[in-house]
Amino acid sequence: MNGRLRQQQVYLDGVFGRTPRVSTDLTRLEADAERVMRPEAFAYIAGGAGTGATMRANRAAFDRHRIVPRMLRDASRRDPSVDLFGRRLPAPFLLAPIGVAEMAHPDADLATARAAAAEGVPMVFSNQASVPMERVAAELGESPRWFQLYWSTSNDLVESLVSRAEACGCEAIVVTLDTTLLGWRTRDLDIGFLPFLRGMGIAQYTSDPVFQRLVTEAGAAPRTPVDAPAPRPTPSALSVLMSLRRRKISRDEVQRFVEIYSRPSLTWDDLPFLRERTKLPILLKGICHPDDARRAIDSGADGLIVSNHGGRQVDGAVATLDALPGVVAAVGDRVPVLMDSGVRSGADVFKALALGARAVLLGRPYIYALALAGERGVRQVLRDLGADFDLTLGLAGYAAAPDVGPEALTG
Amino acid sequence: MNGRLRQQQVYLDGVFGRTPRVSTDLTRLEADAERVMRPEAFAYIAGGAGTGATMRANRAAFDRHRIVPRMLRDASRRDPSVDLFGRRLPAPFLLAPIGVAEMAHPDADLATARAAAAEGVPMVFSNQASVPMERVAAELGESPRWFQLYWSTSNDLVESLVSRAEACGCEAIVVTLDTTLLGWRTRDLDIGFLPFLRGMGIAQYTSDPVFQRLVTEAGAAPRTPVDAPAPRPTPSALSVLMSLRRRKISRDEVQRFVEIYSRPSLTWDDLPFLRERTKLPILLKGICHPDDARRAIDSGADGLIVSNHGGRQVDGAVATLDALPGVVAAVGDRVPVLMDSGVRSGADVFKALALGARAVLLGRPYIYALALAGERGVRQVLRDLGADFDLTLGLAGYAAAPDVGPEALTG
Amino acid sequence: MNGRLRQQQVYLDGVFGRTPRVSTDLTRLEADAERVMRPEAFAYIAGGAGTGATMRANRAAFDRHRIVPRMLRDASRRDPSVDLFGRRLPAPFLLAPIGVAEMAHPDADLATARAAAAEGVPMVFSNQASVPMERVAAELGESPRWFQLYWSTSNDLVESLVSRAEACGCEAIVVTLDTTLLGWRTRDLDIGFLPFLRGMGIAQYTSDPVFQRLVTEAGAAPRTPVDAPAPRPTPSALSVLMSLRRRKISRDEVQRFVEIYSRPSLTWDDLPFLRERTKLPILLKGICHPDDARRAIDSGADGLIVSNHGGRQVDGAVATLDALPGVVAAVGDRVPVLMDSGVRSGADVFKALALGARAVLLGRPYIYALALAGERGVRQVLRDLGADFDLTLGLAGYAAAPDVGPEALTG
Amino acid sequence: MNGRLRQQQVYLDGVFGRTPRVSTDLTRLEADAERVMRPEAFAYIAGGAGTGATMRANRAAFDRHRIVPRMLRDASRRDPSVDLFGRRLPAPFLLAPIGVAEMAHPDADLATARAAAAEGVPMVFSNQASVPMERVAAELGESPRWFQLYWSTSNDLVESLVSRAEACGCEAIVVTLDTTLLGWRTRDLDIGFLPFLRGMGIAQYTSDPVFQRLVTEAGAAPRTPVDAPAPRPTPSALSVLMSLRRRKISRDEVQRFVEIYSRPSLTWDDLPFLRERTKLPILLKGICHPDDARRAIDSGADGLIVSNHGGRQVDGAVATLDALPGVVAAVGDRVPVLMDSGVRSGADVFKALALGARAVLLGRPYIYALALAGERGVRQVLRDLGADFDLTLGLAGYAAAPDVGPEALTG
Repeated sequence: MNGRLRQQQVYLDGVFGRTPRVSTDLTRLEADAERVMRPEAFAYIAGGAGTGATMRANRAAFDRHRIVPRMLRDASRRDPSVDLFGRRLPAPFLLAPIGVAEMAHPDADLATARAAAAEGVPMVFSNQASVPMERVAAELGESPRWFQLYWSTSNDLVESLVSRAEACGCEAIVVTLDTTLLGWRTRDLDIGFLPFLRGMGIAQYTSDPVFQRLVTEAGAAPRTPVDAPAPRPTPSALSVLMSLRRRKISRDEVQRFVEIYSRPSLTWDDLPFLRERTKLPILLKGICHPDDARRAIDSGADGLIVSNHGGRQVDGAVATLDALPGVVAAVGDRVPVLMDSGVRSGADVFKALALGARAVLLGRPYIYALALAGERGVRQVLRDLGADFDLTLGLAGYAAAPDVGPEALTG
Repeated sequence: MNGRLRQQQVYLDGVFGRTPRVSTDLTRLEADAERVMRPEAFAYIAGGAGTGATMRANRAAFDRHRIVPRMLRDASRRDPSVDLFGRRLPAPFLLAPIGVAEMAHPDADLATARAAAAEGVPMVFSNQASVPMERVAAELGESPRWFQLYWSTSNDLVESLVSRAEACGCEAIVVTLDTTLLGWRTRDLDIGFLPFLRGMGIAQYTSDPVFQRLVTEAGAAPRTPVDAPAPRPTPSALSVLMSLRRRKISRDEVQRFVEIYSRPSLTWDDLPFLRERTKLPILLKGICHPDDARRAIDSGADGLIVSNHGGRQVDGAVATLDALPGVVAAVGDRVPVLMDSGVRSGADVFKALALGARAVLLGRPYIYALALAGERGVRQVLRDLGADFDLTLGLAGYAAAPDVGPEALTG
Repeated sequence: MNGRLRQQQVYLDGVFGRTPRVSTDLTRLEADAERVMRPEAFAYIAGGAGTGATMRANRAAFDRHRIVPRMLRDASRRDPSVDLFGRRLPAPFLLAPIGVAEMAHPDADLATARAAAAEGVPMVFSNQASVPMERVAAELGESPRWFQLYWSTSNDLVESLVSRAEACGCEAIVVTLDTTLLGWRTRDLDIGFLPFLRGMGIAQYTSDPVFQRLVTEAGAAPRTPVDAPAPRPTPSALSVLMSLRRRKISRDEVQRFVEIYSRPSLTWDDLPFLRERTKLPILLKGICHPDDARRAIDSGADGLIVSNHGGRQVDGAVATLDALPGVVAAVGDRVPVLMDSGVRSGADVFKALALGARAVLLGRPYIYALALAGERGVRQVLRDLGADFDLTLGLAGYAAAPDVGPEALTG
Repeated sequence: MNGRLRQQQVYLDGVFGRTPRVSTDLTRLEADAERVMRPEAFAYIAGGAGTGATMRANRAAFDRHRIVPRMLRDASRRDPSVDLFGRRLPAPFLLAPIGVAEMAHPDADLATARAAAAEGVPMVFSNQASVPMERVAAELGESPRWFQLYWSTSNDLVESLVSRAEACGCEAIVVTLDTTLLGWRTRDLDIGFLPFLRGMGIAQYTSDPVFQRLVTEAGAAPRTPVDAPAPRPTPSALSVLMSLRRRKISRDEVQRFVEIYSRPSLTWDDLPFLRERTKLPILLKGICHPDDARRAIDSGADGLIVSNHGGRQVDGAVATLDALPGVVAAVGDRVPVLMDSGVRSGADVFKALALGARAVLLGRPYIYALALAGERGVRQVLRDLGADFDLTLGLAGYAAAPDVGPEALTG
């Protein structure tokens, strides 16, 4: 990802009156996307937990750290790539798993995959994707992909999803730990809109043989309450809904999804089950405390992702950039540490690396770009962020991404 | 208060086009309520002392502390309840005493009581309520209730109010220390509106036999000046007022109320009088200094409430969340410490507990909800705050409210 | 100044539909005054040096300190008064000297004096007043007054002004040190408006016999350049001006005023001249550095005023509340230390006292009130600030203003 | 630059109804200029790297430091001048090199030069100026000038430019180190506008004999790729552009400029080449790290300019005022340290001096003034900033600019 070339291209396009499809400043995409998205879709993507304090903290933490550029170190030879689990990434970022992309654009995950493949940026399949992973994988060609797992209440389903991910060529499994329960997301709640209840974002499930078996069995056998005494959507309500939306997704499927998509009782003792069922690297996502980081390593995790789920789960949570150094110190060199939540610029990527991250995950901005300009929007965001990081790297005086350390920032 | 069930209910309601009556983000209620309330009523509820600096400080203090969520600790078993004076509360919050609720809704305290009873949240009767406590108590059934006392210039009246509170089943007496004088409330002053002078918020008095006796005597005997040389509302002024409002409240009652509702000369030496007259736990509200906390315990207080009266009394006062740790350290385990002023989310409740509070009191938000949607609004706020706290608890990695300690926050 | 009585009066007025003439929240007066004042007048009063950073810093410093109220200390006996140079002030504030009050209201200093006399608040006559001090003094009766001096380039004039001040009953001389040059006041400069060039604010001079002699001599003798090679207003320009405004002030008077109103070369060595010519207490205004404070005491100053001239002189200067503790520590108990610049509430007065000030000076708010409601507006501001302070004192747990010390604030 | 005289002039002008051409508060010029500039021109001047965080940090750093004025030190004798490389500057600031001034005003650098000459302020010729340096030099008379160099990929061109600068009477060479690559400037990118691609800002090149030779050779010989595999503007694209704009600049010139204007591979080892080719003082611009400062001195630099290019290169970079003390400490008295980026007032100049800068460079504000009022606008800005600094100096208690040290600020 050569930032200089990307710059030249944009400016030359400008000579012919062609301007970028989406802003090259990722902090501007949210307001732009709000103008084109349906309110409930925008609320779902943009919203956070509670009062939104964690989202604000994520951004504020990036603002607090400042880069001290070094001069005369030959900025012509810049290598923004990083190694991660045997792969060389063109730049130290991946596409974070985001569910229900269909709310942003009808091409949804397929558009994202084509953009990811075009730029060689790893894509992390969301467990709540709008398209089954097999179809998305087909768009990716040789481009790297990972699978993000919500640990289901059914271990059979966990096993099935992981097996399918392996079959789809996924190179790592990301277990999201921070969402065994859904956070108190006030914007969605105020609208009364949860996409899953409309049969959206459950394609990984409806395309799964184990899930289908569970749906069938559920009709016959008495069900074990998942989070007793939680009520379940009444058949009539979901029937009405489904008929209204004229979807090919059954009431039973949605109901079963709601029951089993996440396991609130998950503990450290469950990890060996997954460890035994895949040889893929396992990353734990949501780690913010050094003690959890140590335990994760002791439990055999191959990588950590410092994350607060983009501020969507715990209101008033620690900013991930603030949590990162402690986790990195606890982990040392044993496994790579990634981070996400709040990344919006090449400088943000740079700062995360300086504080010990191997790479970051980019979330909302690419979904906003998807809403604004489909596959081309996503692709532009990837190229722009890569260019921005590449230039930041060179202008800060660093030849290669892995060279960036804490001395690159003010104390 | 199971947050997950509450979430599911709201989202399912949404499927049928039913959205919450009031926002599930309590920080949004103030602006919403302003649109439906009469200006003088909104000013009275929303306003604070002086320039409003204390209200801003209260909120800013919550923003400064950040939660560090812990992973894989089994979020399915969450117990948000806490013990307080032998009762088990469904969640660590109570309804703060707020006077003159009639300005928000004609059902006033009765609506609040019905909502409190429905959710099992303790209600603290305001000494300045719009409805006599006996009528409110009747709405509460078995639900817990406390009584908040402004220490009158008449000890006979104090004794009468406390006796009535006991008869009404109140389980604790909260003595508000911070309002022996009314603060300089600029929004009210600019409008020239004090509800008590219109006969509002004096129902606990007009329904009291001692108060009635004092009113009668006042007509005959020379009155002892309360805060000499304070002038008293002239009979003619109040007569005009009362006739205008066609209320059944007499001029004499309002005048007597103004004279005796609070005792500016109150000192620590007065506490034994109350201690001898009730076996109920006595909580002192308004404590912000560790020395006052120690003296309170030495004086036999059974609990403390760190409070700045929602920023309504001293402009530029310390935020209660900032004052809390010092008070907690001074008190140790001897009595429970509660806090209020600025609580707007489950994360706020969580942070207060982490810094040593046993529970918090929720104020303005429920009055805004009352204005917006009556009893149902209050009930929703209680359910939402409970759900938000329950989810925060689980997502932060805590099984039970009392487990939350300072290690749950960044240093 | 009994805050409780003032409150009662405002609320009772409200019963009859009479609301305060100006807001009881002094931070709101600026915006209100802007609506009624001529733009150049408002710019002159509200403006500060450069970018306005000092004005913002003054306010921010007050916000940083927080009061920790103490409970149960008998708030009925509050004494907000303080002793200052043998006088007992009703509250710890004075009316700061502000020039050219005629821009706010035609009654100018006379209205202020009547308000000051009514409330017993000391008035500091401005050297740049719109009305000669003798006329203002006549309005004050027995009420205390001080005189603020800009040290002229003519020592004869200094002597004359001080003698007149003594004859007018002034009880102290305040030497403003921070304005030997006028600051770079961008709002005035953008409008190109300096009131003195229109013959405004020079009444203390035109009414002075020495000044008149200097004007006459200036016509005959070669003038000594004051700040060579500063050009002087050309006669023609001022003639045009004067004729346009049809004032009774001569071109020569304005020209002479511009030349001699302030002495940029003033040093510590000049102080003995003044010391020898008056027995009145001399206060030095503008001291912000502890070394200057020590030198001032060594030079025989009887008091200090920590001030940055309301942010009108040096842009980016230290906030006075931040400078206060250092000055107080340097001075010890030797002389009283006052402060001004940014005071807008009773809490501000309280905080200044807590940090060592004996009293504060109130500036812009009373001029805004003068613009909004004349003498009655000023009087209301004095009553309101007194009431606000009195209540803050009592509610914070202090019986008397001099008791307030650093322990009243958070550390 | 006598601030008092300037004040008097502005106010006297106001008497006759003449107000300043541009605001005397430089922070207001940006918004004013936006109203008169073409959007792409304004974006180019006002924009910064990425999200604009560095620009905000620059300003915030100035706000954090506070001046502590000293009293009674004779403000009549103020000497705002400083010595720099054998010259005495009227005030401690220079005109920063800014390219493409034609976007602000058709008189461009010529207008700036006339203003600089009138005020005696040194002008630093931009390598990207709109007018060849020889023509600008002709406007300057005896007034001081420097030359700012972007180190070309062609050492021949470097040598030619430096020789021309010497011939033009330049007294120093400023090597801009921070722009070997162009930063990720989102406002320009969103518009797709880079002035150089329209043949703007390349006059130093098209007027250069070496550059012309390189253009001619480029047509015949195979070109060595500069930043392979960077694509070059296609001839057709540039042809279209040039014909559209009907400029007298050839396609080949623009293409060659894009290839060679800056050398990304520049390192410390290249400095001797320049050192050997000129006897002029060499200043390195862009130094923010103490280690770079030391190395610069060791490499024979005669001066440093702490700069982040007005926030245009690295987003999230350290504020220059925050970087200044470290660089000054590393350099000691060996060479003068200058700074730029964010200077908007006399107080800013004062603070930079207090933290060790010998002088500062003023950037955007004079271009805004150029856009608003041409040469007279620039001249006014120089006079106003000089006046503001002179008054700040005197009012802070300093007799001469070099006396200002860290003790002038709060700790």
